[in-house]
Amino acid sequence: MHRIYIQGTIYPEIQVGMREIFLDDKDIPSLRIYDTGDASHAKPIRSTWPKPAEGLTQRQAAQKGIITPEMEYAAIREGMPPETVLKELAEGRAVLPANKNHPECEPMIIGSKFLVKINANIGNSALGSSIEEEVEKMAYAVKLGADTVMDLSTGKNIHETREAILRKCPVPIGTVPIYQTLERGDLCWENFRDTLIEQAEQGVDYFTIHAGFLRDYIPLALKRTTGIVSRGGSLIACWMQTHKQENFLYTHFKEICEILREYDIAISLGDGLRPGCIADSNDEAQFAELKTLGELTKIAWDMGVQVIIEGPGHVPLNKIKENMDLQLELCHGAPFYTLGPLVTDIAPGYDHITSGIGAAVIGMLGTAMLCYVTPKEHLGLPNKQDVRTGVITYKLAAHAADIAKGNPQALLRDKALSRARFDFRWEDQFALSLDPETAESFHDGASHSEFCSMCGPDFCAMRNTRRIGE
Amino acid sequence: MHRIYIQGTIYPEIQVGMREIFLDDKDIPSLRIYDTGDASHAKPIRSTWPKPAEGLTQRQAAQKGIITPEMEYAAIREGMPPETVLKELAEGRAVLPANKNHPECEPMIIGSKFLVKINANIGNSALGSSIEEEVEKMAYAVKLGADTVMDLSTGKNIHETREAILRKCPVPIGTVPIYQTLERGDLCWENFRDTLIEQAEQGVDYFTIHAGFLRDYIPLALKRTTGIVSRGGSLIACWMQTHKQENFLYTHFKEICEILREYDIAISLGDGLRPGCIADSNDEAQFAELKTLGELTKIAWDMGVQVIIEGPGHVPLNKIKENMDLQLELCHGAPFYTLGPLVTDIAPGYDHITSGIGAAVIGMLGTAMLCYVTPKEHLGLPNKQDVRTGVITYKLAAHAADIAKGNPQALLRDKALSRARFDFRWEDQFALSLDPETAESFHDGASHSEFCSMCGPDFCAMRNTRRIGE
Repeated sequence: MHRIYIQGTIYPEIQVGMREIFLDDKDIPSLRIYDTGDASHAKPIRSTWPKPAEGLTQRQAAQKGIITPEMEYAAIREGMPPETVLKELAEGRAVLPANKNHPECEPMIIGSKFLVKINANIGNSALGSSIEEEVEKMAYAVKLGADTVMDLSTGKNIHETREAILRKCPVPIGTVPIYQTLERGDLCWENFRDTLIEQAEQGVDYFTIHAGFLRDYIPLALKRTTGIVSRGGSLIACWMQTHKQENFLYTHFKEICEILREYDIAISLGDGLRPGCIADSNDEAQFAELKTLGELTKIAWDMGVQVIIEGPGHVPLNKIKENMDLQLELCHGAPFYTLGPLVTDIAPGYDHITSGIGAAVIGMLGTAMLCYVTPKEHLGLPNKQDVRTGVITYKLAAHAADIAKGNPQALLRDKALSRARFDFRWEDQFALSLDPETAESFHDGASHSEFCSMCGPDFCAMRNTRRIGE
Repeated sequence: MHRIYIQGTIYPEIQVGMREIFLDDKDIPSLRIYDTGDASHAKPIRSTWPKPAEGLTQRQAAQKGIITPEMEYAAIREGMPPETVLKELAEGRAVLPANKNHPECEPMIIGSKFLVKINANIGNSALGSSIEEEVEKMAYAVKLGADTVMDLSTGKNIHETREAILRKCPVPIGTVPIYQTLERGDLCWENFRDTLIEQAEQGVDYFTIHAGFLRDYIPLALKRTTGIVSRGGSLIACWMQTHKQENFLYTHFKEICEILREYDIAISLGDGLRPGCIADSNDEAQFAELKTLGELTKIAWDMGVQVIIEGPGHVPLNKIKENMDLQLELCHGAPFYTLGPLVTDIAPGYDHITSGIGAAVIGMLGTAMLCYVTPKEHLGLPNKQDVRTGVITYKLAAHAADIAKGNPQALLRDKALSRARFDFRWEDQFALSLDPETAESFHDGASHSEFCSMCGPDFCAMRNTRRIGE
């Protein structure tokens, strides 16, 4: 009997959305345990762990050949040896985001050699949502399978919202610190630095920082059909235009890295110039910034900081590969983390799908983490149901990428589900699916019937096949 | 002022879901007419048209160099010269499905040189649905943009349901005649032939016929994880197994083509062996049948019959290209018509998305028509809302493929929508979108506000860009 973790966490005391497959003696995957814990049970598991690499970031430890407990934990989740995790970390092709002040975080690894990860964005805006709602969205996203969560709050109670989320969250939390900087008053280096330290102390695991958007790139953005569509990017552009100075995130980059290194926070180099429409995709503005992100990668790496590169936005299917190829070349193999890309502009209300298409393709090509898009993109703040739709759509896109990359764990799950389907084991089919609740609610046959209402009993092809084979 | 049709039909007396873009003097696409007619207004427009090619199929006319009114009409809809339509038809790379007895059908062309088309499946099963419901689903699918509709009824009143649909339907109707054959009694050539003639007389525009599934292929199918998943394929397999004879659709293929030629019905060579799970994709069974479909293509072509080749099912992203390449090679360039493909098995309830991903990719690679999949796939009979979700998902997948192929009409629509978005012309944005009603219902800002609740007023990047540019 062989046991395989297919989704969720691995420690029984946590068990958030855990699923397992058991293989029988003939290696037929047919049994499973399906258990949904509750993300709000997150406990500070890392608080009691040994610290073999005290004072070092995971990158620095890896470079010294030290396998930390975090690396070991992440390796188990991937079904890979810890040496692989160490190697990918040491060479910068992966990150293990785990702020020393976020002991609730279960270690996980993001890199193209590993399972493709997905991020769910939550957070309030000036126009709505409460702390409770945001914590609920986080727990819901994690239970459904989000690998990381970004709190993008820009409204009221940003600190308190984040604190409530962090203390209950078993996955890495990311933020875009420039949003909260505006709460402290004017946008400037000092206010930004203080915000970084405040959030670092709380335990944020990775920061999106738009340090690669240089003043020279503003004219390139103004030529576009939809200009700048990154919130952080547009704030920095306004600041540079008003002060007629270079981006302070660029000029203070080493000081930023010093702070991040202290807590072992990964830097996610933001793409302030990601294209907001098909017409702007793969343009001079986008690739100029990408080149600068590559330069900053080297600086951060030299200082021991783990680096992620942010990318895409709106990119047609035929131009996705160019993005991936250029990112690998310009950013020296650092993991790519993309929003979608959305492969057309014309489907507001369905942009989880337009972007899920691009996400699956860029994931197959080597992108390490996919930032979800909900049906509300371009239209409004997502609610809990939108979070569900976004997470499941991205889990399936990431899984499609894993399948295309030949990941054995991923392939096994498809095979197990399809065997259950062919055997009319409906309950096993649902348990192995990404969203058992929805699948079951759509099934209108009896739970033991050998057909469903789509075809009825006489036209069920699988039922007919079974008869032929008998 | 330049006027461009972007969706729907072109004759003012019909106007089903018609949309147009107007370009101003500076070629800025900003105005539009948005008009939703009602599919149930379909009139027999072709009944008064001249018949320059009396007695000939569209293929035969094209080979003689005759541009029929149908070719001319289809060309206008594509924004292409009728000579291109003629050439693609003559060489078999496209079909123009228009049964002489379906005068309500507005001519359209399916081929890789043209806009990627989508098909919506409707039809009852033994477990439910009425004639009225099915007519309503048809009208709804056409209004939302379905380019063809297949009536896959297997339940009661198949003849009456189809008659009601055909007489109100402005798009080509396809069927799988073997389903109704069972109504006449035993499955056999005589009952099948009589069913073909009955449906041909009514005006069905294309038939799916599983003539390429040979007896030798049964053992290949029985080795699979999920066997045969095509309803028609499984019926033929049962017949071959019971009678220990070769597929009668294969042995009577020329007689079938004679009937089809008389009415100018296109044959859609069915893929009885399409893979039903990732593990069975691109296997021996699938490609053995594809080779036979290629042989049948030549026979049908020689008899003047228009041919479509059916394909995919469940295929991972990394194996899609092999399908397209082999189809082009084995089937001599005949248009490919695929179900999805679904790029993973693990998302029942979301298979419109798992298949929309594969559909966009295979469409980009040259597939001419995409058969939609609804969220109910594998679980139950789709209702009206499922039809909506399926059609819009496939419209966006087909459009993403058109964009990737560089179709100028398609690119213009994205640009027009994105300009409207950047200008905060919310109503234009919705009008240009695939599902204006849904987009508008998701927008929670005021219709003239320069932001939405996703970011709120201070964090709207596009608003900030406009300020920088001022």
